[in-house]
This record gives sequence, C-alpha cells and structure tokens, in this order.
Amino acid sequence: MTTQQPGSRRRLLVIGIGAGDPDHLTLAAVKAIRRADVFLILGKGPEKSSLTDLRRAMLDEHARPGYRVAEGQDPWRDRSEQDRGSYTAAVHDWRSRRADVCERLILDELAPGETGAFLVWGDPALYDSTLAILDEIEDRGTVALDIEVIPGITSVQTLAARHRTTLNRVGRPIHITPARRLPEAATAHDGDTVVMLDAHESFTRLEGRDLWIYWGAYLGTPDELLISGRLADVADEIRHVRADARARHGWIMDTYLLRPVEPEDGPET
Amino acid sequence: MTTQQPGSRRRLLVIGIGAGDPDHLTLAAVKAIRRADVFLILGKGPEKSSLTDLRRAMLDEHARPGYRVAEGQDPWRDRSEQDRGSYTAAVHDWRSRRADVCERLILDELAPGETGAFLVWGDPALYDSTLAILDEIEDRGTVALDIEVIPGITSVQTLAARHRTTLNRVGRPIHITPARRLPEAATAHDGDTVVMLDAHESFTRLEGRDLWIYWGAYLGTPDELLISGRLADVADEIRHVRADARARHGWIMDTYLLRPVEPEDGPET
Ligand SMILES: C[S@@+](CC[C@H](N)C(=O)[O-])C[C@H]1O[C@@H](n2cnc3c(N)ncnc32)[C@H](O)[C@@H]1O
Ligand SMILES: C[S@@+](CC[C@H](N)C(=O)[O-])C[C@H]1O[C@@H](n2cnc3c(N)ncnc32)[C@H](O)[C@@H]1O
Repeated sequence: MTTQQPGSRRRLLVIGIGAGDPDHLTLAAVKAIRRADVFLILGKGPEKSSLTDLRRAMLDEHARPGYRVAEGQDPWRDRSEQDRGSYTAAVHDWRSRRADVCERLILDELAPGETGAFLVWGDPALYDSTLAILDEIEDRGTVALDIEVIPGITSVQTLAARHRTTLNRVGRPIHITPARRLPEAATAHDGDTVVMLDAHESFTRLEGRDLWIYWGAYLGTPDELLISGRLADVADEIRHVRADARARHGWIMDTYLLRPVEPEDGPET
Repeated sequence: MTTQQPGSRRRLLVIGIGAGDPDHLTLAAVKAIRRADVFLILGKGPEKSSLTDLRRAMLDEHARPGYRVAEGQDPWRDRSEQDRGSYTAAVHDWRSRRADVCERLILDELAPGETGAFLVWGDPALYDSTLAILDEIEDRGTVALDIEVIPGITSVQTLAARHRTTLNRVGRPIHITPARRLPEAATAHDGDTVVMLDAHESFTRLEGRDLWIYWGAYLGTPDELLISGRLADVADEIRHVRADARARHGWIMDTYLLRPVEPEDGPET
C-alpha cells in the first residue's frame, strides 16, 4: 500500500522473453513490448551477452518507434559470500542494493502515467529477482506502481522440448533445484529433477545413481548443445563438451533433467 | 528406430498452446500452426470445452487456408482404477489404447510427406501424454515419424504471473506435484510446492501447516478466479468459490502454489 494519488502511479510491465529463441516470445509479450514507453535495464546475469543481443533484436522488431531505453548501474555482488555459506543473505543484500538502483531509475526515467517495461530472461517466476526487487520498492512506499507480469517460456521448457521429453513421469512429481542443493534435492524422492544455476558440473556428485540425463546448453540459440543418455555413459562427454564450449564462448548457461532409470518405465534405449 | 524409407516419414508438430489465454501462444507456435496440413485431435481432458474453444479460435486465426482436422475417438478410461490404487497401471493401459487410436489416425489421415500437428494444452512437457503416446507408436515401428516439440506457457506460469509472484524463494527448490501425492510432497522439503490435478481440494490436508496459498482457476480465461492468503485464513473461501464455480461451469481446472510462511522471508501482508 502506498500513499500517492492515483495520477502519480507508474505502470510497469515485467515481460518474460524466453531463454534464447526469439520465436519463444508470446503474442502477449509482443503486445506488451509495443505498449512500453521506456525499457528499464539493470542487472546483467551470466547470460549477459545473449540477453543483450536478444533484447536488442526484440526491441528492433517489436517496440514502437521512439521508445526509450534507460539503464541503471548494476551494483556489485559479493560472490565470495556464496562460498562462505551465507548465500541467501548475500542475495538479499544484493537485491536491496539493486532495489535502490531500480527505484532511482523508475523515479528519474519513467514519468507518472507512462509505461515502463523490464524484459526478463525466460520467465520472471523462475529464479529471477525482478519481482522481488519491485516488491521491495513498493514496500518502501516512495513510488506507486501498477505491475503486470507476462509469463515467458523458460529454459527448462526449451530443454524438454528439444529433447522431445516430458518433465514428469506418470503421476510423479517434478523438482526444480539450484545445483547447490544437490545431491539431496535429487535423491530424496522418486520424481524427476531439473537442475539450474550449476557452475560446478554438480551431476558429478550423482554418478553413483542410475540416472538418465537430458542436458542442454545455450538452449534456443544457434549455439545450442544437447546430450542425453545414462549418466554413467555420458558424464565424461558432457564435461568435455561443456569445458570446451565455455572456453570458446567465455561463458555458459546449461540446465539438465535427471530421471531415475527404472526397469518398468525408464527411458527406452 | 524404424525401418521405413525416408520418403514414408511423416512430420509431426507437438505444439503447446498455453493454458487458456490465446495471447499466450508463442511466435514459434503461430508459425508451426501455419505449417501444418492436418490437425490431429484425440483425447478430451477435463479442460474439454475450453480446449475446444481455444483450439478453434487459434485455427481460425492462424492456420493456413484449407487445413484439415482429423479427430480420433478417445478410448474410455477406467477412472475407478485410480481410487483402487493402481493409478500408474491404469494410465499406462489407457495410454496404449490411445496410442492405437493415434496410430490409426496418423496412418489414415496424414499422407507421407505431409505435416500433422497436435495442439497441446499448456506445455507438452507438463502432465500431458501426447509425447509418451508418440514414443509408444514409434517403438512399434509401423510408421516413421519426425517429431518437433514447441513449448507452451503452462498453467503454473500463468498462476505465478497473475499473482505477481515467483515459483521459488532465493536458493530454494520448487516442487510440482499431482495432488494425489499430498501431503508428503509438500512437507518433505523447504521449497515451494505447486499442486496440479486436484479433484479433491487436497490443500485441506495441509491446513495444520503455516502456508501461504496462491490459488487460481480457469487461469488465462475470462472466467479466471484468483485467491491468495494464509491457508488457514482463505481455505474456506477457496472451498466455497471453487464449489460454486464448479457447479456453474460443470467443470473446474485449478492449480495452486503453497509456500511455507517464515518470519524472515515470508510473503508480506
Ligand atoms: C538466474 S536463472 C534464470 C532462469 C530463467 N528465468 C528461465 O526462465 O529460464 C539462470 C539459469 O537458467 C538456466 N538457463 C537460462 N537460460 C538458459 C539457456 N538458454 N540454456 C540453458 N540453460 C539456461 C541456467 O541453468 C542458468 O544458470
Ligand atoms: C493434465 S494437466 C495438463 C497441464 C498442462 N499441460 C499445462 O502445461 O498447464 C491438467 C491440470 O493442469 C492445471 N490447469 C491446466 N489449465 C489450467 C487453467 N487454465 N487454470 C488452472 N489450472 C489449470 C490443473 O491443475 C489441471 O488439473
């Protein structure tokens, strides 16, 4: 709740743009891009170069003439904290500093009555901090926001589609987890596990189990890489391909699905 | 692997069309719909009427002139099995009978060299049997298929977007589960839980826990219903609204996200 008059409200569109394939934009996202006066940019994830390219292509094609782009300086994030175990605290602190930058950006660059837009990689609901940052800004009560969220195709869905598989088996749950929660997150249940945010080839920690892996990197982009098979058989190949691609590109984004191999309903070979 | 010559291959597009909002169609899905000669239809889920309407609207708007529609008779499913505990077996058996119908449909209605399409509710990767049915047909070796999957916005993403929330909290996993796996599937971890396929208001079984619920029905459609709050506070309201809507429409599709309330990072009130 805020105390400003209705006239001072700013409309913000949080638009999921898919995770690499420009054709994964939805019709709703295209319409939303067309409605925006200003595109607000802050935060460069690991997807940095891809995000910049994809965003530019989308604005060129879909934004209305005369649109503006306003860019905030992304605050520095202490990633060493992550390894000292206070990951959540470090992310919360980083988020607050990003909220500061974002609040200034909104106040300075978006006039009351105008419509601003954030273009979010994949879907804003999946391991993305934009909505949490806007929550924090709203709680401060300094600026009144009308927020609308447009979902986007996630990297997880692109992974499944490219491997022509599902994320679940009949009647079983699906678990999506940051790699730092492995191996527990993949062993405490009988469902399939999707792993994201993996900087360390964490599937290595699960090699003792009989799992099928569906791995994908740079999904949806021309550089897309796909490997699938029994983890014990393909783990080495994935490590090699991954190290090689990472060296070549300077960065990598990958995701994978792990499925317990079971005689009665495991993947066919 | 199959033994047919390349010329006899049939191209099949499995297209996710979103879970209710026609604007959730992706540009890739629009292009795929335009490429199809024949739309293959089998299986009416609980979403029956919505799916039929949405499909018709999409074909009217995006399919190329002269497209054909071929409909197979959906085999009868013994739902009583479900309550006797052999859910997986019943689904597998139903799936085989659907594969029979589907195989006939492909052989009779789709000429070699033509492109057929299945329009799938939401995303084909999420609790949908189309890909498993096509796997089964391919394994039989009677018809050679080239399958391409186009991901679609799921009901889960629409739920999160409409509530303007994420599916995860910082660093935590996400669990998606069929309601029949509650309460265990929501209590064995510290992540958020998305519940689907709930015929019995299964959140009732979790009322002892301090959870925040984001509930949505008929998401993406003009009949959309949204309720959120502390489970203990809103469970009665959801039960009433749900029963009422179900009686009015004759059917209901709902999904919800359950998030443990925690002093340090629970949802703001
Ligand atoms: C901060 S999360 C953002 C996820 C995004 N919101 C989505 O919906 O996909 C970044 C992680 O998503 C995954 N990811 C994103 N884009 C990807 C792509 N094109 N290919 C493979 N993985 C990707 C990787 O696991 C990466 O570490
Ligand atoms: C067989 S699953 C199919 C899910 C679909 N493939 C998807 O991506 O959303 C059907 C379940 O999805 C959920 N569902 C599908 N469409 C929905 C909608 N428009 N609103 C609310 N829930 C929906 C309900 O939980 C329903 O029981």
